[in-house]
Amino acid sequence: MTDTLADPTLAETPATRLRGGPVMPTSSLLHPLTSAEIRLTGGYWRRWQRTNAEVVLGHCESWMERIGWIGNFDRAASSEPGWEHAGIEFVDSEVYKLLEGMAWELGRSDDAELADRYERLVARVAAAQEPDGYLHTSFGRPWQRARYSDLEWGHELYCFGHLIQAAVARIRTAGSGLLVDVAVRLADHVYETFGPDGREAVCGHPEIEPALAELGRATGDRRYIELARLFVERRGHGLLRPIEYGQEYFQDDLPVREAATLRGHAVRALYLAAGALDVAVETGDETLAAAVEEQWRHTVATRTYLTGGMGSHHQDEAYGVDFELPPDRAYSETCAGIGSNMLSWRLLLQSGDPAYADLLERTLLNNVMASPREDGAAFFYTNTLHQRNPGTVPAEDDLSVRALSSLRAPWFEVSCCPTNVARTLASVELYFATKTADGVQIHQYGEFDVDTTLDSGAPVVFSVTSGYPYRGSVVVTSRAETRRPVTLTLRIPAWAGHADVQVGSEGVSRVTGRTVEITRVFHPGDVITLDLPMDARWVTPDPRIDAVRGTVAVERGPLVLCLEQAADGPSVNDVVVDTSATLWTTDRGAAVTGRRAAVDSAPWPYGKTPATLQDLGTLQLVPYSTWANHGPSTMRVWLPAPPTPRSVGEQPTP
Amino acid sequence: MTDTLADPTLAETPATRLRGGPVMPTSSLLHPLTSAEIRLTGGYWRRWQRTNAEVVLGHCESWMERIGWIGNFDRAASSEPGWEHAGIEFVDSEVYKLLEGMAWELGRSDDAELADRYERLVARVAAAQEPDGYLHTSFGRPWQRARYSDLEWGHELYCFGHLIQAAVARIRTAGSGLLVDVAVRLADHVYETFGPDGREAVCGHPEIEPALAELGRATGDRRYIELARLFVERRGHGLLRPIEYGQEYFQDDLPVREAATLRGHAVRALYLAAGALDVAVETGDETLAAAVEEQWRHTVATRTYLTGGMGSHHQDEAYGVDFELPPDRAYSETCAGIGSNMLSWRLLLQSGDPAYADLLERTLLNNVMASPREDGAAFFYTNTLHQRNPGTVPAEDDLSVRALSSLRAPWFEVSCCPTNVARTLASVELYFATKTADGVQIHQYGEFDVDTTLDSGAPVVFSVTSGYPYRGSVVVTSRAETRRPVTLTLRIPAWAGHADVQVGSEGVSRVTGRTVEITRVFHPGDVITLDLPMDARWVTPDPRIDAVRGTVAVERGPLVLCLEQAADGPSVNDVVVDTSATLWTTDRGAAVTGRRAAVDSAPWPYGKTPATLQDLGTLQLVPYSTWANHGPSTMRVWLPAPPTPRSVGEQPTP
Repeated sequence: MTDTLADPTLAETPATRLRGGPVMPTSSLLHPLTSAEIRLTGGYWRRWQRTNAEVVLGHCESWMERIGWIGNFDRAASSEPGWEHAGIEFVDSEVYKLLEGMAWELGRSDDAELADRYERLVARVAAAQEPDGYLHTSFGRPWQRARYSDLEWGHELYCFGHLIQAAVARIRTAGSGLLVDVAVRLADHVYETFGPDGREAVCGHPEIEPALAELGRATGDRRYIELARLFVERRGHGLLRPIEYGQEYFQDDLPVREAATLRGHAVRALYLAAGALDVAVETGDETLAAAVEEQWRHTVATRTYLTGGMGSHHQDEAYGVDFELPPDRAYSETCAGIGSNMLSWRLLLQSGDPAYADLLERTLLNNVMASPREDGAAFFYTNTLHQRNPGTVPAEDDLSVRALSSLRAPWFEVSCCPTNVARTLASVELYFATKTADGVQIHQYGEFDVDTTLDSGAPVVFSVTSGYPYRGSVVVTSRAETRRPVTLTLRIPAWAGHADVQVGSEGVSRVTGRTVEITRVFHPGDVITLDLPMDARWVTPDPRIDAVRGTVAVERGPLVLCLEQAADGPSVNDVVVDTSATLWTTDRGAAVTGRRAAVDSAPWPYGKTPATLQDLGTLQLVPYSTWANHGPSTMRVWLPAPPTPRSVGEQPTP
Repeated sequence: MTDTLADPTLAETPATRLRGGPVMPTSSLLHPLTSAEIRLTGGYWRRWQRTNAEVVLGHCESWMERIGWIGNFDRAASSEPGWEHAGIEFVDSEVYKLLEGMAWELGRSDDAELADRYERLVARVAAAQEPDGYLHTSFGRPWQRARYSDLEWGHELYCFGHLIQAAVARIRTAGSGLLVDVAVRLADHVYETFGPDGREAVCGHPEIEPALAELGRATGDRRYIELARLFVERRGHGLLRPIEYGQEYFQDDLPVREAATLRGHAVRALYLAAGALDVAVETGDETLAAAVEEQWRHTVATRTYLTGGMGSHHQDEAYGVDFELPPDRAYSETCAGIGSNMLSWRLLLQSGDPAYADLLERTLLNNVMASPREDGAAFFYTNTLHQRNPGTVPAEDDLSVRALSSLRAPWFEVSCCPTNVARTLASVELYFATKTADGVQIHQYGEFDVDTTLDSGAPVVFSVTSGYPYRGSVVVTSRAETRRPVTLTLRIPAWAGHADVQVGSEGVSRVTGRTVEITRVFHPGDVITLDLPMDARWVTPDPRIDAVRGTVAVERGPLVLCLEQAADGPSVNDVVVDTSATLWTTDRGAAVTGRRAAVDSAPWPYGKTPATLQDLGTLQLVPYSTWANHGPSTMRVWLPAPPTPRSVGEQPTP
């Protein structure tokens, strides 16, 4: 494999923009790899990427065909008067996210049938574009609401953003195409309408911001970056009308550069922060970049679930205040996890700080990957950390509502998550490694090959093999002669704290930093082994997280574990684990000694004597992301420790 | 004072229906008193009832005048085409609840100015009634939605219910009036439209059910009771279209008689249960009555906050599942507390079980009375048990949204709570005592006189004096010669567990049951003293309430206490109380020994060492219902006990 980036003289030409991942900053400390430079070869991620190609993409397409969301474009292109729009007003975006996923998949595949489906779908979208570039199936026709008449809730620019992202994926994998032309015309229309000489407004749901920044990067047209900048800077000045949830819901309470934390609707906050960082990078705005970094830091320290999930409120899909992280009402929307990864990845590219890769790993494996059912044909929208009741079984043929079941649903009334999972899985390996002028950085582990040429001129080919996330041994084998010294940087995950590293036949050394750096001329067959500690471990929460006081969780490697019990078995709700007993490590999870806290039924649940503890024997804990694949169940991540006897009084009923 | 009920021969005649409280069952174990039979004389409740008369009623009226909610009726009565309706679609009901409150107030007052305001407001409402009896300002005009076109969300019958309740209050205090005529015409229209020969449908928001039952009782027209029965029986059969929150939101998931618990939107669930019990009583349907009793029992045992508040979800204002009672996201809507009292009162009248009076006391003092600001000019809509951040200060002149502040707001976009508080305060003493053929039952304590004649012929006059809810001594003095034996029943609150009782100059005896019964011929000057233990006491939660594991609360007498700290003082969020130290009882609250759990700032809030505890000295706890009267603050009811050291590992960042 070769790549145009291999020749530094090409780095500034339009041709170099052809290949790349979803995020290709003009400048960054770490450089992303292209899909030509990194490729999954097996293991956990290859299996999921194959499931995505074989199941998820088709699942999304056939659902949207059947329920008319794709048909909206055909009707929009027709001259039929008064046709009825299928689905809520922003379903166009689901088609675009599917197209983005297809584009990434086509970037590494020769699947002619998929290519054909992609082209036919693009043609149907393109046919709905209006002469001035506007393209939305819910607005602007005589029987519909006027264009841009409801920026608070209408999601027009949000949909455009996803169309543009889909086009960028096509540019980065194929260079051009009909969708790219559509996106450019649409972006020009938006520039005309909302640009420096246009209307001073923003969309209630950010997304156009990172999309425009990326289109600017991909096409070299700085106007798009300027427009992204305008949208970022305008926010927080009250341009959106007041809504019941308060203006922080769509981040219009404070200018981005003045905010100390992410807040409000989690997906909106994360997409906006990603776009703001893009703008900061492209305009050299260090103040803005520092504000986004600080927001990430505060949010991770105080508003993030153990799984990496974000969003504590069902009502407004929003962050709670600091340390408000209820496990049983965790919203932890799949799309927020994806938004968090978008942001962490951008920050990692700029700073190289492995903390960003740590959170990305945690969120990807424990929040995003909790969404798809193991067959790829159903999804969680929200990702609770405590399911008290099995709930109802979602219909396989009907649209589901969010969060009423312990089981994943095939499709939702608001179905942003399945297509977001699709585009993420289709491009997931692009988040695993980066390069610099003289080195390669491995951020995520699994089974993949990196094949690139550094700016130093060194050709580098590494094969990474590992049973990750279940096994802790990672083997990196050089397949090329690098000719000059190359630095291989391996992340030591924060959860591990240390790693045992062996270079070739040298002795094993224990490393306790955040990374291991091995600089040498690599020869074919050179082997580096990284051994990460995979014993299950207890995790205790910060005492300020009221909702999980007195509980513990268990992690094993990068995975958060949970206790799941079948609907017809004992419920997890009254389980207590013995934290002084052994924590056993099992093949993919852990085992603990459990007790049942038997509480006498009482007419009033306050002021009673402590529960008596009955032996439950050994309880198996399994990876959180794999729960709910075997029928209705109850589940919890945070496991109550035995209650402390207290010298306090009692009292009977209300 | 005399009353028509004094003569048992009048008990079946229409004249006896003139006087009474909000609930006058045709048959019950305990008989409610009329406003002629019980009257507040001082103390906590007299002060609040005066504030209601002098501030709350006028506050509600002037707000609704200023923002056009009353004006809607004028516009509806006019021939002006296309006028714009002010407020959301169910604001008519706020005017009706105000009229109900005014009616109760006028029942014991000679306030000519209030009477004049009442009559003028009734006239404006009456003018909007249509020839066929229909009366709603949001539906049915050419530019509005058609009548009954959105039973799920339109609240038409809900509004009618409140108009009818207001009319019933007028019947019970004045016998008749224009509003009574309006209500009867409206109820006849509803009977015509939805009765046995009408459309088989129900309203998304129950309220018409108890209202029709009461109108049937007040007028003797059984058709209204039959219509209430139809509405109750139809619910749970899928007559309402599916909504995102699921059909349990408006209790259309299960027939009332098949449900094991209250569920869904708390106010709807409680109003429906109240109406179902009314129907059960009037039709002798013991199965239905037993179902409602069981729902109350289950809900109190598993879905009720320490304050008596109900509703764990902000999203849908709904009950959570069993033991899902997060203090920081407690919705505990004021109106749900009022609905709970409506239900508990009805159950108390039927069974005499003091548990219903216990919950009513708890809910009234700690949930409903937490709503009004001490000056009566602002209200809580939701009643959280943990305010983490002071939040924003609500505007004094603008409509507020719910639950964004630690302070009460003058008025809301959806402003059901202030008018509900107004009608409750205006009739609150009617929940304090009942009578039977040969006795009087005192359920709630305070300062009031009971003056009635029993069916046995005994005239009974009792003066109750007490510094309740702050003082535990209750003195009941007879002011009349009862001529024959009368049983005075005094509730021993469940929170007390026992009481010291002294009859005249007899010795003091400690009683541990649920009631004290004193049967004798009472003479003027006879004194019964009930002493309740007012020492502050620790309360521990059922271990299944995950959200408050490892915490304690403190109660004093009937009051739930809280820790409140000013916005500029230390936050309550990291306080720990020493449960092994002394719990001091103070004048109106308690004092505990506090510690601050100092936690090092860390990049990731999981897996850290326990906090170090710093001495905070003595912390004052105050009645929960009185918090937030001194500016923005943080507050919590459940106080963390010191964390238990555990033998579990640590780990650094994400």
